[in-house]
Amino acid sequence: MTVRFTGKKPSRRAFLKGTLASTAGVVAGAGAANAAGPDPLITEKQEWAMGTGEGVDATPYGLPIKYEDDVIRRNVEWLTADTISSINFSPIHALDGTITPQGCAFERHHSGAIELRKEDYRLMINGLVDTPLVFTYEDLERFPRVNKTFFLECAANTGMEWAGAQLNGAQFTHGMIHNMEYSGVTLRTLLEEAGLNAAGDLKDKWVYVEGADASSNGRSIPMEKALDDCMIAFKANGEALRKEHGYPARLVVPGWEGNMWVKWIRRIEVSDSAVESREETSKYTDTLEDGTSRKWTWVMDAKSVVTSPSPQSPIKHGKGPLVITGLAWSGRGAITRVDVSKDGGKTWETARLANPGQPMALTRFYLDTEWNGEEMFLQSRAMDETGYVQPTKAMLREVRGENSVYHNNCIQTWWVKADGEAENVEVS
Amino acid sequence: MTVRFTGKKPSRRAFLKGTLASTAGVVAGAGAANAAGPDPLITEKQEWAMGTGEGVDATPYGLPIKYEDDVIRRNVEWLTADTISSINFSPIHALDGTITPQGCAFERHHSGAIELRKEDYRLMINGLVDTPLVFTYEDLERFPRVNKTFFLECAANTGMEWAGAQLNGAQFTHGMIHNMEYSGVTLRTLLEEAGLNAAGDLKDKWVYVEGADASSNGRSIPMEKALDDCMIAFKANGEALRKEHGYPARLVVPGWEGNMWVKWIRRIEVSDSAVESREETSKYTDTLEDGTSRKWTWVMDAKSVVTSPSPQSPIKHGKGPLVITGLAWSGRGAITRVDVSKDGGKTWETARLANPGQPMALTRFYLDTEWNGEEMFLQSRAMDETGYVQPTKAMLREVRGENSVYHNNCIQTWWVKADGEAENVEVS
Repeated sequence: MTVRFTGKKPSRRAFLKGTLASTAGVVAGAGAANAAGPDPLITEKQEWAMGTGEGVDATPYGLPIKYEDDVIRRNVEWLTADTISSINFSPIHALDGTITPQGCAFERHHSGAIELRKEDYRLMINGLVDTPLVFTYEDLERFPRVNKTFFLECAANTGMEWAGAQLNGAQFTHGMIHNMEYSGVTLRTLLEEAGLNAAGDLKDKWVYVEGADASSNGRSIPMEKALDDCMIAFKANGEALRKEHGYPARLVVPGWEGNMWVKWIRRIEVSDSAVESREETSKYTDTLEDGTSRKWTWVMDAKSVVTSPSPQSPIKHGKGPLVITGLAWSGRGAITRVDVSKDGGKTWETARLANPGQPMALTRFYLDTEWNGEEMFLQSRAMDETGYVQPTKAMLREVRGENSVYHNNCIQTWWVKADGEAENVEVS
Repeated sequence: MTVRFTGKKPSRRAFLKGTLASTAGVVAGAGAANAAGPDPLITEKQEWAMGTGEGVDATPYGLPIKYEDDVIRRNVEWLTADTISSINFSPIHALDGTITPQGCAFERHHSGAIELRKEDYRLMINGLVDTPLVFTYEDLERFPRVNKTFFLECAANTGMEWAGAQLNGAQFTHGMIHNMEYSGVTLRTLLEEAGLNAAGDLKDKWVYVEGADASSNGRSIPMEKALDDCMIAFKANGEALRKEHGYPARLVVPGWEGNMWVKWIRRIEVSDSAVESREETSKYTDTLEDGTSRKWTWVMDAKSVVTSPSPQSPIKHGKGPLVITGLAWSGRGAITRVDVSKDGGKTWETARLANPGQPMALTRFYLDTEWNGEEMFLQSRAMDETGYVQPTKAMLREVRGENSVYHNNCIQTWWVKADGEAENVEVS
């Protein structure tokens, strides 16, 4: 075998020579960049079309164009103790497709977002395992990886709406959610590396997971789920997790409430019972009318919302063709159908799914319709592969009462007025 | 139907009262944010784990953590006339999964990246159509939308390697590529809106597409492709296109060379012949040994590259478990198989595809292997659903000679040395 390589890079001149020699009129595509300079025939009005020509447009890491500076995460002032929130909602009213860019993806911190270097990162597996282990970040990268797209929804998403229509905008009512393509190692792989013989019968076993932040945000997860589809993710949408999403590694618990997706994950303990930690008892439980609480309500039930038109995305054109669009998801599997109502749930039309539903991932739906210019009470209703149908708020209140904070997956209503503006309302 | 809504937002106090009343010990998840303050038991060394607690970590639009500041687009100084390039390569050596974040996705400008407001945007359809039309941006949003993930590869990707191993890193040899989830309207929808009866037999018809930048970057596309799967996209990975990718709308030409994906698209003319514009004659053609040129070489043939280990992503651990990973793609359909060689193509092992290949989209592959600590000549070889097999550089040179700049889809070789460092080499 002959190996050839050039230790030093060729000069640009040499490169151009090599290509120019080939045939008259052919210039290297790359070399010709910026050849178009200012043209005296271009009028002042067309100057915006010229770009800079100086190449300053090329950016190492790019941000959205200035005209989109309203497509950002937002908090709700009265929701948190600080004026600057530790909850920031995804601008779902302004997005399309299914992927949420990391830059505007929902963030929630129990003790702030910490800065943890890969070099300082450690992940311990202990408890009922054959060999307790501590992994470095580099260790994690040596195990077989998987790639999957999943939604994360906070258990509190839409929680403020239990008592009635409150927050005026899909970003605020339904924006505690994001959907990303994760790359990482399955939790099963790491647990099997430590060995589970010591745990005996796995049926009733648990893992307790905690993060490296001050809250630790410890959560108990049944072994069955841990071995099924959980993963330790280090990349989201191709690149490293952001600080606010748990850099350098977080737990992914597909279809289950977001607080279980422990960020900066540092320890996984195999145990024979749930820890019943602060984060899983004082929070994320639902108090019923009789004062008892629903417990271990991990799975996020099927849900949907119309993202446009909506209060932050009013109709700006008159009657005629209108695209109604939104998102649907289910923690129990794939979305199979979404219906849309324009009259507050009296009649329904089946929407078009942009692509076949994927398990535990956001599904985009569209209803291509004609608007008659009159007011609408827009609703969407999701169904998943288990046959579950998203309930109305009345149905949900009937079984849960009005004391709950979490797990509100009821049908949302937007009152779209004749002028195209929309408002969050409740119909019954 | 009863409609209820609150015109004013409830006070935080009222909200907390509503939830605290429910049962002792239950606090609103949102309201409890930042409750964990500094703890005297936390040692100085653990201070990094505290976050700020002030909420300043919450950001409207987030950027990567500072520790990842090397995962950025990069140019190649000698490749362009200006020191700041109008070509910026994706850092594929540092990414995983398949989605390319917009912030570090390959950019290439023929006349700089222009800033075009949605309000100023117009798209004209003219030529052999029943009714010439001009669409505003808002008009485009009223047509039925589609969502699809596609790769864009510049025809010049890997072009510098025809003459031998040149650029030391997958970012530079193969980084003129990105892969995003697009939302937009099919070109067919808009052409049918204008009406194609005037064009008669569509078999030999063309569309000529041009952008609003000074280069206009006009390209001719056969009607068959235009009606098949082309789209006018306004969103990528959920959010608006970035300035550098053609905000507010660009053409998507799945599987075909990136320069046809006209950015800031302003005009589509239906015609009975190709225009043979500057951008499709002086560039993007391949000159053969006999001086003639291959023309209309639109489709990007099946190709792959190992992204790690690679020159910018050396092996930092010793022998033992090693994940070899990379990307594969084909403009003719889905990737069906990727083989990896450690000995410069003498023997091959079939890699694991992270997910089934999707048509004209990046596919992530992994080879979970054991490294013996000795040097490797790493190669990957992609196959697509048409049965096409990615060729060696020798095979490609045999049919194309060495005058080409574009359409180099040959097998890449990384020489991984015993110390884990890697270098771009050529083997024969």
